[in-house]
Amino acid sequence: MIPLHGIPELEEGDDLPALIVGAAHETGFDDEDVLVVAQKAVSKVEGRVVHLSRVQPSQRALELAGETDPRRIEVVLRETREVVRARPPLVIAETAHGFVCASAGVDASNEKGTDTLVLLPREPDASAARLRERIGELTGREVGVIVSDSFGRAWRRGTSDVALGVSGIPAILDLDGQLDSMGYELHATQIAVADEIAGAAQLVMGKTDGIPAALVRGLNLHGDGLGRDLLMPHERDLFR
Amino acid sequence: MIPLHGIPELEEGDDLPALIVGAAHETGFDDEDVLVVAQKAVSKVEGRVVHLSRVQPSQRALELAGETDPRRIEVVLRETREVVRARPPLVIAETAHGFVCASAGVDASNEKGTDTLVLLPREPDASAARLRERIGELTGREVGVIVSDSFGRAWRRGTSDVALGVSGIPAILDLDGQLDSMGYELHATQIAVADEIAGAAQLVMGKTDGIPAALVRGLNLHGDGLGRDLLMPHERDLFR
Repeated sequence: MIPLHGIPELEEGDDLPALIVGAAHETGFDDEDVLVVAQKAVSKVEGRVVHLSRVQPSQRALELAGETDPRRIEVVLRETREVVRARPPLVIAETAHGFVCASAGVDASNEKGTDTLVLLPREPDASAARLRERIGELTGREVGVIVSDSFGRAWRRGTSDVALGVSGIPAILDLDGQLDSMGYELHATQIAVADEIAGAAQLVMGKTDGIPAALVRGLNLHGDGLGRDLLMPHERDLFR
Repeated sequence: MIPLHGIPELEEGDDLPALIVGAAHETGFDDEDVLVVAQKAVSKVEGRVVHLSRVQPSQRALELAGETDPRRIEVVLRETREVVRARPPLVIAETAHGFVCASAGVDASNEKGTDTLVLLPREPDASAARLRERIGELTGREVGVIVSDSFGRAWRRGTSDVALGVSGIPAILDLDGQLDSMGYELHATQIAVADEIAGAAQLVMGKTDGIPAALVRGLNLHGDGLGRDLLMPHERDLFR
């Protein structure tokens, strides 16, 4: 796990793949590396930011905001397909993509001034695919790409990074029917490898260190998955 | 992330710390290494196994079992404090420890013959602490220990390994009040590092490879956490 240092604060239109390749000049890229990029970095260069000063809160937002800024909740509601749970000002929402997470993934920007919110990328799988293609053009290497974000969990404290967008690697390893080391068949074991890689990368990216990307080397994963493979289909969802 | 090869199939009373130290003879242990050990290995040496042939299913087990073996569901129910959701034969249960997971963590043993089930350790934090102490005695090194297991997630497909028991490292990194790289204060960001380490280790342990332990080196974590720190308190749980 190799953190990529030296990527500056990002804004719309920045050439993120070029900045990542520059930050990786010491280690370079190998075929089969997995590049993990924080969602916030991707969203910023894609212009997925909202200025609170331009937001007018709705009645629903005022109700859900509690003591907090209703304009933030208004932005959350605009990113929301379905409110899964609300305990003002906490909103657990399903986004248009199908992610279930706090605040529909809407996040403070950490930038100067406090009035900017960052939304999730419109299509995280497409963002991951574009990054992968451009890194390939710049380096000649076939890497996998994950666009990651920190999600809470229903019954566990703290956040763990997960994969929103995936390109060039499997999202899930399906061991259904494979034999274990003793020769017995494993039944329906599906491992969310892309989420585990995202979480592993978080360990070296940190939250306070401002490192928006990391390389994970040596995993030897083959296949083509998508972040949306990791979404639980509604008919199998027991908790909505 | 270093997988520890060569640990044999385990049974009750085996000296797991000695087997782990033997398996790590090439890399050795460093202070601050985090040793991740699969729950199933810990449970087996602790004798937390049940033979199905000795189980008499209750009426409730017969109802929940669907077409599957009601004796297995009976064992699940005995490990259950509260059934959170049931869609026969799937049971999502809160265990006596407070974990919310499929089948109360009860798992097939993968061993010869199919009539043995493996339960979660009685006190995973105590199991982790004993492993840490014994590794310290055998190697003179101060390592952290995580006892890990594969859990499903409410709204995401596939499993991700999490930390059931923790010793010698923090379970959660609390960034509340810390400054990010731009000098802005982060609010209430709590990162479930022990879960992320467990997931990272799973990437090298695999499911089919029979590698019950791995070392994670270079994380530089300090503090004393417990697996039970990762449990969401009931009053903050929106999904039960």
